[in-house]
Amino acid sequence: MPEPVGFSRRARWAGGEPIANLLMARTLAQPELISLAAGFVDYETLPVGPTRQGLDAIFSDPDRARAALQYGTTIGYLPLREAILERMLHADGQTAREANVSVKQVVLTAGSNQLLHLVGDALLDPGDVVLCGAPSYFVFLGTLANLGARSVGVEIDEHGVIPEALEEELARLEAAGELGRVKAIYVTTYYDNPSGVTVPAERRGALVEIARRWSRHGKIYLIEDAAYRELRYYGDDVPSLRSVEGEADVVIHAGTFSKSFSPGIRVGWGILPPELIEPVLAQKGNIDFGSPNVNQHLMAAVLQMGLYDEHLERLRDGYRAKIDATLGAADEFLAGIDGVHWVRPEGGLYVWLQLPDSIDTGLCGPLFDRAVEEGVLYVPGEYCYPGDGRLTKKNMLRLSFGIQSCESIHRGVEALARAVGQVL
Amino acid sequence: MPEPVGFSRRARWAGGEPIANLLMARTLAQPELISLAAGFVDYETLPVGPTRQGLDAIFSDPDRARAALQYGTTIGYLPLREAILERMLHADGQTAREANVSVKQVVLTAGSNQLLHLVGDALLDPGDVVLCGAPSYFVFLGTLANLGARSVGVEIDEHGVIPEALEEELARLEAAGELGRVKAIYVTTYYDNPSGVTVPAERRGALVEIARRWSRHGKIYLIEDAAYRELRYYGDDVPSLRSVEGEADVVIHAGTFSKSFSPGIRVGWGILPPELIEPVLAQKGNIDFGSPNVNQHLMAAVLQMGLYDEHLERLRDGYRAKIDATLGAADEFLAGIDGVHWVRPEGGLYVWLQLPDSIDTGLCGPLFDRAVEEGVLYVPGEYCYPGDGRLTKKNMLRLSFGIQSCESIHRGVEALARAVGQVL
Repeated sequence: MPEPVGFSRRARWAGGEPIANLLMARTLAQPELISLAAGFVDYETLPVGPTRQGLDAIFSDPDRARAALQYGTTIGYLPLREAILERMLHADGQTAREANVSVKQVVLTAGSNQLLHLVGDALLDPGDVVLCGAPSYFVFLGTLANLGARSVGVEIDEHGVIPEALEEELARLEAAGELGRVKAIYVTTYYDNPSGVTVPAERRGALVEIARRWSRHGKIYLIEDAAYRELRYYGDDVPSLRSVEGEADVVIHAGTFSKSFSPGIRVGWGILPPELIEPVLAQKGNIDFGSPNVNQHLMAAVLQMGLYDEHLERLRDGYRAKIDATLGAADEFLAGIDGVHWVRPEGGLYVWLQLPDSIDTGLCGPLFDRAVEEGVLYVPGEYCYPGDGRLTKKNMLRLSFGIQSCESIHRGVEALARAVGQVL
Repeated sequence: MPEPVGFSRRARWAGGEPIANLLMARTLAQPELISLAAGFVDYETLPVGPTRQGLDAIFSDPDRARAALQYGTTIGYLPLREAILERMLHADGQTAREANVSVKQVVLTAGSNQLLHLVGDALLDPGDVVLCGAPSYFVFLGTLANLGARSVGVEIDEHGVIPEALEEELARLEAAGELGRVKAIYVTTYYDNPSGVTVPAERRGALVEIARRWSRHGKIYLIEDAAYRELRYYGDDVPSLRSVEGEADVVIHAGTFSKSFSPGIRVGWGILPPELIEPVLAQKGNIDFGSPNVNQHLMAAVLQMGLYDEHLERLRDGYRAKIDATLGAADEFLAGIDGVHWVRPEGGLYVWLQLPDSIDTGLCGPLFDRAVEEGVLYVPGEYCYPGDGRLTKKNMLRLSFGIQSCESIHRGVEALARAVGQVL
């Protein structure tokens, strides 16, 4: 008989692979299914040409190539960190001084996911609390569970987390003697995954003010997940949450090139309040000793050669057509069904769909299998709700339009509408 | 006044950046110093040509390039996992059936460090014990501290961890009622960092037998760190610890292309006992969602095109000259000093030097600053001892011959001998 294996608490809290992987596996196994679930990016616009040009620039110069093939530093390649900071300042219309930020605060990671995990690791003990919009990015919710932390939901509207609801939740936690356990508020500020909403400028200031005012028993950070900022197809850019905090130093800003360039290259970053730099780097040093150096040199070359901005224009054109296809198909096939609603995102990769209250979208509900039979896969909304579960809705689902063609999106939404019609 | 920041216990346990980073930073800041400390690999033999050929093969085929630029899976790219397994089986002279292993057990990570961290995360709660040779790889000792686990030292000789000493330590822990907290024994089986020793075949069997026999209160794993296996300059290869375990399923095998190909590409792997696959992947899914896909495709191409083996020959020739230079200089400058000893490694990147008992090699001891003044940097041996400290020796130091030229190695060892002479 095999000996019992003593897995760690964290291993038990991790609780199997994230739902994204489960759904991705399901997608890969059934290629005939139209997956509006997987968070993959568009295959056709992956930057083969720009990547090749960037690699050629590096590898045609042996010294430069060797520098890329050697170990880097834990914090990451300085020219790339400088370029990232410069881009953010430019987008926010600020100087480094106005933004109260320096390149020392910019840390490179394996996608923004790793940054989120490192920050969680550095801040959260088991039982600590992170306030999250209900719904929120489910991978981060899984990360919090893995750390033994509690994700507590806050109501959102079409502009993201509602400041008044956030205050109410903080007051409730304070009344329960738990304000000291609240370490952070997590907000995807641009084209939220899954809700698609963007936090408007005025609400950003309110969030910073709330975080500061409630930091009575210890600092409460605002984790700004800006993964989708550059995937803007309509409307204007909004200055980052980072840019409106002044000298508060409460915002942890996370960004990535995974969505806007290539997830296979997997370079993300964080812009950290000064006191977090050392603990996050210590944690990263223990985990992987620095992200792959060659990938960082590549992204630096791509940015410096102007290839990134060119690519971004093509990418936006491609996704603009896809979001139009998604919303157009929803108008065509779903608008007529009572109780079906959605917000029209101006960017990102997701449309968050509300179905009639009576429809449970979960894997065990009536819709999911019906939808698969009709030929479409979605992410059941219930996975996107914080762990405390108080605000979980069973009648929501997430549609991703990243990987499918406009034609497939159209057929997929049509299939979904058929399934909904059958269940009603 | 700023609010107090509540860092996590893990952040406090991380305790600053690893010593490697501190020393690396010191190295970078003083280029005139001959660093025999940094674990960087040889700059001249970094595989510029092979990498470029591998990248060309991928990026000249748009479909293949797009597959590399898209998200991969958490476990990693199947053709690379297959190639890694095949190489190991070939080196061990076994079939997959004889080795009781399948490709499902092969997981790709960001260097072998990440694998070690993931395994630690999946197995270790605060207070759990990992038995480690005294000395051991200091980055892994830092990882254990970061997890709140205890590293307990076991005496080594010129063949690595001494089985009898391991038994004694296990008996001591059992007597203290702590056998149930022992989760693993960590062994660098080839050309250990820092000691340079290789565990001979017969001792490998003994280690497996001990791990099995002492798994009375729960499974005790053997973590086999094989990072340096392919950096063999003299003598014969030895079948892996993994290969001698039969159906025990106690060995966690860690490997990497960082030392044998490029640390900037940063692809490592683990071969895991079946029950560990799911928890390790769950943890990896939470941390980074899979290592960069393009790097995995690149390494698969490099292996498949035969470029890796060609490179390995060149690399071994280069390092053979360097280890000869190191040992030759030691013979020339250090052999005459009473109380100075070293083992002659047959591979790897390190020579572990014993100085007279009276010499403290630490940063605050008399030798370190004298050595820097003379123009050479080394790693003080005290950083390489497990956290319990019972076996820590103050008169040891590690020399790395990876980055320096033969001529610099010669001058560096000569400078060290001058410093030792002055201190005596």
